[in-house]
Amino acid sequence: MKRIAILTSGGDAPGMNAAARAVTRKAIYEGMEVYGINYGYAGLVAGDIRKLEIADVGDIIQRGGTFLYSARYPEFATQEGQLKGIEQLKKFGIEGLVVIGGDGSYHGALALTKHGFPAVGIPGTIDNDIPGTDYTIGFDTAINTVLDAVDKIRDTATSHVRTFVIEVMGRNAGDIALWAGVAGGADVIVVPEQEFDMKEVATKIAEGRERGKKHCLIMLAEGVMPGHEFAEKLSEHGDFHERVSVLGHIVRGGSPTARDRVLASKFGGKAVDLLKEGKGGLCVGIRNEEIVAADIVDTLENGKHKPDMSLYTLNQEISL
Amino acid sequence: MKRIAILTSGGDAPGMNAAARAVTRKAIYEGMEVYGINYGYAGLVAGDIRKLEIADVGDIIQRGGTFLYSARYPEFATQEGQLKGIEQLKKFGIEGLVVIGGDGSYHGALALTKHGFPAVGIPGTIDNDIPGTDYTIGFDTAINTVLDAVDKIRDTATSHVRTFVIEVMGRNAGDIALWAGVAGGADVIVVPEQEFDMKEVATKIAEGRERGKKHCLIMLAEGVMPGHEFAEKLSEHGDFHERVSVLGHIVRGGSPTARDRVLASKFGGKAVDLLKEGKGGLCVGIRNEEIVAADIVDTLENGKHKPDMSLYTLNQEISL
Amino acid sequence: MKRIAILTSGGDAPGMNAAARAVTRKAIYEGMEVYGINYGYAGLVAGDIRKLEIADVGDIIQRGGTFLYSARYPEFATQEGQLKGIEQLKKFGIEGLVVIGGDGSYHGALALTKHGFPAVGIPGTIDNDIPGTDYTIGFDTAINTVLDAVDKIRDTATSHVRTFVIEVMGRNAGDIALWAGVAGGADVIVVPEQEFDMKEVATKIAEGRERGKKHCLIMLAEGVMPGHEFAEKLSEHGDFHERVSVLGHIVRGGSPTARDRVLASKFGGKAVDLLKEGKGGLCVGIRNEEIVAADIVDTLENGKHKPDMSLYTLNQEISL
Amino acid sequence: MKRIAILTSGGDAPGMNAAARAVTRKAIYEGMEVYGINYGYAGLVAGDIRKLEIADVGDIIQRGGTFLYSARYPEFATQEGQLKGIEQLKKFGIEGLVVIGGDGSYHGALALTKHGFPAVGIPGTIDNDIPGTDYTIGFDTAINTVLDAVDKIRDTATSHVRTFVIEVMGRNAGDIALWAGVAGGADVIVVPEQEFDMKEVATKIAEGRERGKKHCLIMLAEGVMPGHEFAEKLSEHGDFHERVSVLGHIVRGGSPTARDRVLASKFGGKAVDLLKEGKGGLCVGIRNEEIVAADIVDTLENGKHKPDMSLYTLNQEISL
Repeated sequence: MKRIAILTSGGDAPGMNAAARAVTRKAIYEGMEVYGINYGYAGLVAGDIRKLEIADVGDIIQRGGTFLYSARYPEFATQEGQLKGIEQLKKFGIEGLVVIGGDGSYHGALALTKHGFPAVGIPGTIDNDIPGTDYTIGFDTAINTVLDAVDKIRDTATSHVRTFVIEVMGRNAGDIALWAGVAGGADVIVVPEQEFDMKEVATKIAEGRERGKKHCLIMLAEGVMPGHEFAEKLSEHGDFHERVSVLGHIVRGGSPTARDRVLASKFGGKAVDLLKEGKGGLCVGIRNEEIVAADIVDTLENGKHKPDMSLYTLNQEISL
Repeated sequence: MKRIAILTSGGDAPGMNAAARAVTRKAIYEGMEVYGINYGYAGLVAGDIRKLEIADVGDIIQRGGTFLYSARYPEFATQEGQLKGIEQLKKFGIEGLVVIGGDGSYHGALALTKHGFPAVGIPGTIDNDIPGTDYTIGFDTAINTVLDAVDKIRDTATSHVRTFVIEVMGRNAGDIALWAGVAGGADVIVVPEQEFDMKEVATKIAEGRERGKKHCLIMLAEGVMPGHEFAEKLSEHGDFHERVSVLGHIVRGGSPTARDRVLASKFGGKAVDLLKEGKGGLCVGIRNEEIVAADIVDTLENGKHKPDMSLYTLNQEISL
Repeated sequence: MKRIAILTSGGDAPGMNAAARAVTRKAIYEGMEVYGINYGYAGLVAGDIRKLEIADVGDIIQRGGTFLYSARYPEFATQEGQLKGIEQLKKFGIEGLVVIGGDGSYHGALALTKHGFPAVGIPGTIDNDIPGTDYTIGFDTAINTVLDAVDKIRDTATSHVRTFVIEVMGRNAGDIALWAGVAGGADVIVVPEQEFDMKEVATKIAEGRERGKKHCLIMLAEGVMPGHEFAEKLSEHGDFHERVSVLGHIVRGGSPTARDRVLASKFGGKAVDLLKEGKGGLCVGIRNEEIVAADIVDTLENGKHKPDMSLYTLNQEISL
Repeated sequence: MKRIAILTSGGDAPGMNAAARAVTRKAIYEGMEVYGINYGYAGLVAGDIRKLEIADVGDIIQRGGTFLYSARYPEFATQEGQLKGIEQLKKFGIEGLVVIGGDGSYHGALALTKHGFPAVGIPGTIDNDIPGTDYTIGFDTAINTVLDAVDKIRDTATSHVRTFVIEVMGRNAGDIALWAGVAGGADVIVVPEQEFDMKEVATKIAEGRERGKKHCLIMLAEGVMPGHEFAEKLSEHGDFHERVSVLGHIVRGGSPTARDRVLASKFGGKAVDLLKEGKGGLCVGIRNEEIVAADIVDTLENGKHKPDMSLYTLNQEISL
């Protein structure tokens, strides 16, 4: 393979730039040419494509967001869109594609591969909800951003002896809430993967208060219910001076952490290794500290992301 | 004066601890004894009072919140509450009081002084809305916290070519929105002190987009209207891919900035100087870079906080 | 086991407090009593020991350093010191000990176990150089602190077209330099585990400059040689406008990252699980994402820490 | 004036980009054209000049360093260099120049004005040592960067009961040490503007230790002597477990604080206002919260920067 392209798709995640940089540099190192596609699959179909040189990915490893821009493009689910995309790639003489994004991006990569065009997926989303990998690019940054907010909220919660319900992103996955909950010393973590009893939550808060605990932090995954709804339901069980904090889009941005940049760099290098060997229809990932590649079909059909529920149990034991 | 006390009241603000530390240390340096009152005026009336030694305020200069806790206590508006408070102070042999907080706190300090008990106010609130001072303790930290969030949101806004409405605290004052708006490179700043025309806002965004601008950031003071309401009204003038981010309580917390710690230390030192001379009924402040003291009555009755509206004009000129 | 104790030993590392908190809370959850020993083995021998309650470890998960203090105490290598330590433990009715620290701390734990007193080690050091675990507590925070500094230095390096030699901690291990080097986009990484040729370094810088690269960052592990010495030797091969930045003790401190707090919490929980079963002479660790326990003798004698040298190779390929 | 240019000169400072952005945008707003000169006076003489559009200064307000690059260029002190510079400016039809930098930059601006070419100076340096202004661009960011390091060092100092000598930048001025010293709760501040007695320093540390103080932080301005020299001299008066931390170039970089961005934006706007009226030979500044312009000759000849020494006195009183 002599010429490959990269695109980022779906919600942006810190570390996407680091991954795109690694793909570009590694490919050039291997003697290939690299093209960047703007605005994800939309730009692919529209032919918004440009050659990337070493300097184009200079000074971006530390930046949040994606310098290739991203966009939703449901039209790529149609065969028409896919064939048009391949047409554009062929027009530029591109032989392989790296897609950085979430499961929507993987479906696009899979479609291209089925049409005979090798594509490789790199998991990039703050939600950590992609099967086939223990961690996605952006997750580590996201939990640290949440943690920074939790540390700030704790100041106020302690000063005013209040209960804070902190709603965090994660779509249907509880990973962000679990990690940031344990790390932030949350009293209660509520995630979609585990049923909970509001009365028990209330009892726990009341007991803590009785022991002299100044603050109570509840880490709530958005996949369960909105923060305000939770606070309202909680208030039916007592007056806990609840406040609600919805950590929205700030969790998507920011300069990536060391771990996200390293992970992104490794993923980028691996993706180029695969394409160099002519392999497509794969998604890279990290499993038990090893960088791996798996079949996208199998991953999407049989893979299932499971958060580390040992964190849930641990938090119940140490959040007295 | 041989023995003074400190309390923090109203919403907590980063730097309150630095101020309490300075009051304590400076008073001890001057040969006085210092007592800390927990939970503001509520703790004063309840007699939740303890002696503070040098070490009690060690290692707190960098902490957000207030180690003396804070609480609302409307009952202190009554003469009964005030006299009970003075009774408690006298029981501990306390001769003067430093109150760190917002205008509610000032009213309490004024009432005590009127009853013959000298009290001095230090302006502590993130909102910067206290008359008699150019800056309040906590404001500088708050605008930097907002800025950090804006820088993160810009990553996503740019990556997805979106318009973000960022709602920030400030009660009826636009200071946070003005400063963080200019510093964050907001395209539009909307504050209570200045009327605005939604149609003009829409036109400005449309023009920027036409010129190729990737993102649009609107900094909205909560005193104008909620962010979601603003976004809805904006959307009547066109499709701007609006998202709303409400920066809530995270803006109250966090380790204070250098400037807030320095300002708090100066205010604390000044308050002790005043009480040492037996003066009460005053509030300290910074005016044109000078630490000053003003009559609380006059400040509350005639003083009027005005934000720096030159920032509004400047932003219109440089946010093309 | 009904009563256990904790101490921190060696250089402090961010996350030690999170580990001590988890040990304390988990032990109390399991119905045990917990004692804290100040100043490491020195305090153990001196009997500087106090009971810890739930509240004693409240509000410390976010703090750098160690609230139990640390100290070097070579005297604990003697049998006399060890027996005196056990005597103190018995005086307080303590039946098991958790030691948080580096390999020096492990040797102490081993000695105690050999004398029949069960002790468990938790790896805590920023250097990541402890055998038996993929990661130590504090390492993730340290690489992010280094990264923050690198991102700042890059600003100046770019603005002035300079070469920066950044010396980082790590004792004899290159882990910090490797991770922070890849994450920081270093042009060259120099670690003790890999020989290097100064002339090749010089050639690489010269080539980058020729291609228009504005800055050059060299990440140097302290185990190789001091930064100033490196810069001097480099300057023999050309004028690269070298500047040297020695990131010293700032890398030891700071609020721990999410990952360090989670890891510390898991380690703490595991250590209590082991002692509860009466097991000693073990050190906990994380291997391939799994929390494990290994024999301390075997770990110290046969274990060998190896940094992830794939990062070295990767960096050579993507730091064009 | 229809066409102006900007350059940055001397050491880079956070906020220079914000100032250049404000100059560019405001000038375009006023109907002028703006050119950017790369590498300071060196680029001016070499004709490294390009037109700046609105988008060229987009997304830079948050970046440290200077996107116009900087360089030392002593040759500009000669009349020959100056005339060549003016020649280049005239070749591009440029009628006025904004120079962002320290006093070296001011001298260049003055020389140009004397040759009949209107130039205006904007004070940009982390050292805060420019006469004619209370604050320079970059100072607020620098003290917060130092503070962040101090807060980290305090963790280790406390954990190990050590004395840290923290050497900070500032050339011959003590401003950074004074502000960061008060804000960081330093026990001792040592600046060039105030003589000190090493024996008194030693006594103060000893007294603090006796009272049970865990750490001692000494904030040392580089203008006094190097940190290692200070520590050595201190150790002649007792064993204080000294460690030295030299905060070097990290203090120059980083994303500018809110205050630095606002100040830079105001300065930029003011500079354009002056050039629009055809005025040159001036430098802008902030005096008692007001944006002012002063004669460069008078400022350089008679102006004298004085740090706020009230901070020194205050620190002696509150650093018990």
